[in-house]
Amino acid sequence: MTQTHWTLAARAAKMNPSVIREILKVTERPGIISFAGGLPSPQTFPVAEFEAACAKVLKDDPAGALQYAASEGYGPLRELVAENLGKQSAAAGVPWKVDPAQVLITTGSQQGLDLVAKILIDADSKVLVESPTYLGAVMAFMPMEPNVVSVASDDEGLDIADLRDKAKDARFLYVLPNFQNPTGRSMSEARRAALSAEAARSGLPLMEDNPYGDLWFDQAPPAPLTARNPEGGIYLGSFSKVLAPGLRMGFVVAPKAVHPKLLQAKQAADLHSPGFNQRMIFEVMQNGFLDRHVPTIRSLYKAQRDAMLQALAHHFPSTANPDDTLTWNTPAGGMFLWARLPKGMNAVDLLPRAVDKGVAFVPGAPFYAGNADARAMRLSFVTPSVEEIRRGVAALAEAIHAQRS
Amino acid sequence: MTQTHWTLAARAAKMNPSVIREILKVTERPGIISFAGGLPSPQTFPVAEFEAACAKVLKDDPAGALQYAASEGYGPLRELVAENLGKQSAAAGVPWKVDPAQVLITTGSQQGLDLVAKILIDADSKVLVESPTYLGAVMAFMPMEPNVVSVASDDEGLDIADLRDKAKDARFLYVLPNFQNPTGRSMSEARRAALSAEAARSGLPLMEDNPYGDLWFDQAPPAPLTARNPEGGIYLGSFSKVLAPGLRMGFVVAPKAVHPKLLQAKQAADLHSPGFNQRMIFEVMQNGFLDRHVPTIRSLYKAQRDAMLQALAHHFPSTANPDDTLTWNTPAGGMFLWARLPKGMNAVDLLPRAVDKGVAFVPGAPFYAGNADARAMRLSFVTPSVEEIRRGVAALAEAIHAQRS
Repeated sequence: MTQTHWTLAARAAKMNPSVIREILKVTERPGIISFAGGLPSPQTFPVAEFEAACAKVLKDDPAGALQYAASEGYGPLRELVAENLGKQSAAAGVPWKVDPAQVLITTGSQQGLDLVAKILIDADSKVLVESPTYLGAVMAFMPMEPNVVSVASDDEGLDIADLRDKAKDARFLYVLPNFQNPTGRSMSEARRAALSAEAARSGLPLMEDNPYGDLWFDQAPPAPLTARNPEGGIYLGSFSKVLAPGLRMGFVVAPKAVHPKLLQAKQAADLHSPGFNQRMIFEVMQNGFLDRHVPTIRSLYKAQRDAMLQALAHHFPSTANPDDTLTWNTPAGGMFLWARLPKGMNAVDLLPRAVDKGVAFVPGAPFYAGNADARAMRLSFVTPSVEEIRRGVAALAEAIHAQRS
Repeated sequence: MTQTHWTLAARAAKMNPSVIREILKVTERPGIISFAGGLPSPQTFPVAEFEAACAKVLKDDPAGALQYAASEGYGPLRELVAENLGKQSAAAGVPWKVDPAQVLITTGSQQGLDLVAKILIDADSKVLVESPTYLGAVMAFMPMEPNVVSVASDDEGLDIADLRDKAKDARFLYVLPNFQNPTGRSMSEARRAALSAEAARSGLPLMEDNPYGDLWFDQAPPAPLTARNPEGGIYLGSFSKVLAPGLRMGFVVAPKAVHPKLLQAKQAADLHSPGFNQRMIFEVMQNGFLDRHVPTIRSLYKAQRDAMLQALAHHFPSTANPDDTLTWNTPAGGMFLWARLPKGMNAVDLLPRAVDKGVAFVPGAPFYAGNADARAMRLSFVTPSVEEIRRGVAALAEAIHAQRS
């Protein structure tokens, strides 16, 4: 008997286990306070509403919910998505008339990344990303073997001059303008306007990912980039952060230039997303449930962010030279805060020592497609309680001080 | 403002809308009796059990069911899949010890096809398929740009001599041994043994797809090919035909040579399949529910197959020369029957005339990767009732006789 000749595709060499997920495995020991995961607080899951929705869906139209269905998604949910996006954009001052026919329901917004990669990336295609950027997006792109190029970014978002230098022949720019994963930063209105103008000038397609946009603390973010030029962008959205991730429901809004191919890619990938889940989401969402529910998530996460900011300020008083201490930003929404260790320290080295003290985080380095900042770290403030946040930051301070002394 | 430069990947040109789904759109007019779809009978969906499972899952562990989860799938479901496969194979005479660690839960078994394609197919890689074969598999493979090569097949399955001629350097053979879509045929034990021996001789990897294996009418099919050499094959299974397609739940059992890459591809594709759905399936399946439920599906589908066979025999009496009339096979399970029009007729041309008479089917041609049989047609006997099957076959006979005269 000959040994079976398994030959992996060349692209398989570009695929790797998520560094973050590997880190999470190490840090998910009982008793560890975790700032590492990107997990929404389970307190925010509308369990009673899901129970009612399940019962209703299975009572009203079990055959419809349980049968094979259209690859595009459940019609009423597509309409609701289009309507909500239109309302939000109008409220932000940029009307966007979304045609439900342009909405494709996906198995989590992660699938949107996979489908877009399939239809837009050839081997060695240039794909632009922020610096740092969402690791899951890069992982979705990698099987299609792109040349991922980082665009310099600051606290307000992308550096437009650097974008202009790099935009030529790029297949698209992947951008997460609201409360970005991993940094928690948001793109300012001025920067969005400049980015839109630059994309319009150069013809650069945008891929706008917006899983966190609803989780603002004091004021809604500026209008989506895609609203400013719907034919020039693909917009990805998610129900994971406002309802629950475990149903794996997201969507892509795509212009006519790419929607049909995206739909064909979807059909080949999994025929359609679960019709049962689409109906559950629709049942829960209709009649304005999110308008009542999302504010409760915002105030919970804001209180937890505040607790983290206070604890950080307590343990790391500001110094004349910011290189001498831990520094951090103040996210205006979302789930993450971005911190930077004192000069000479390295977040990867710190992690096991922090875990020994009882707290976990994710080092920032894996989020950079190019030059990584070894001092950066991502701290999630949404999963632990306020009390755990205080203890966790104290433990982090202990680990940092111990390593410096 | 420059027009946005949308540049599609080269692979996008290989992607096309499913011919079948396009046909289904035309034929889904009200009042049409459809033998066209591959839809399980909604009568078989265990709605009450799903209701109970939803309630239990959301009561017992809502945070677990609704949170992000492991890419591998829900542990207890993976164990149940492994256990069931082991039992079935042992009962068929070939023990197969499936390690739950080799089981990957997928978003429908269609996703398994997509993931395997990603990790095993390079542009121009040779991939072998039966003739005819499942169109959805070819559609899942196409974005990776394989050279799809048909292996000659007869009523017992693959032609082993032709396989031997074509096996060299093939990345894998895709095969659907039980009640195949589209033909309804099954591979005989002798043919399976010969195929296994040939794969072992040449080192050819097998990709065994088994969505219909549980739907046997008189006796269980022979043991899976993968059970005969677990390190030499990837096995795909589905819950769509024994529970319901609308939850989009399937699985892949893969050997150590490919499982890790498959898992990475899964993570990049949609992070994980919905944890809620996985728990629902697990709750319904445990305590041997399928042992009670699946026999009811078998007897329903068998009665409907019998009704179709009788109606066909009534309207198309046998003739001295089989080219003079409609001929068909007698599937021993599954959902489909394969028929062949009289010489000189063409199933694609017949379809609109049949729809005018009130009945729809799928022409066989799209299922061939190579030389298509223009006279072939696929008739599904599971969605319409016995009474509709009788009327539908009568209408089909009218359309055929009208076109011949």
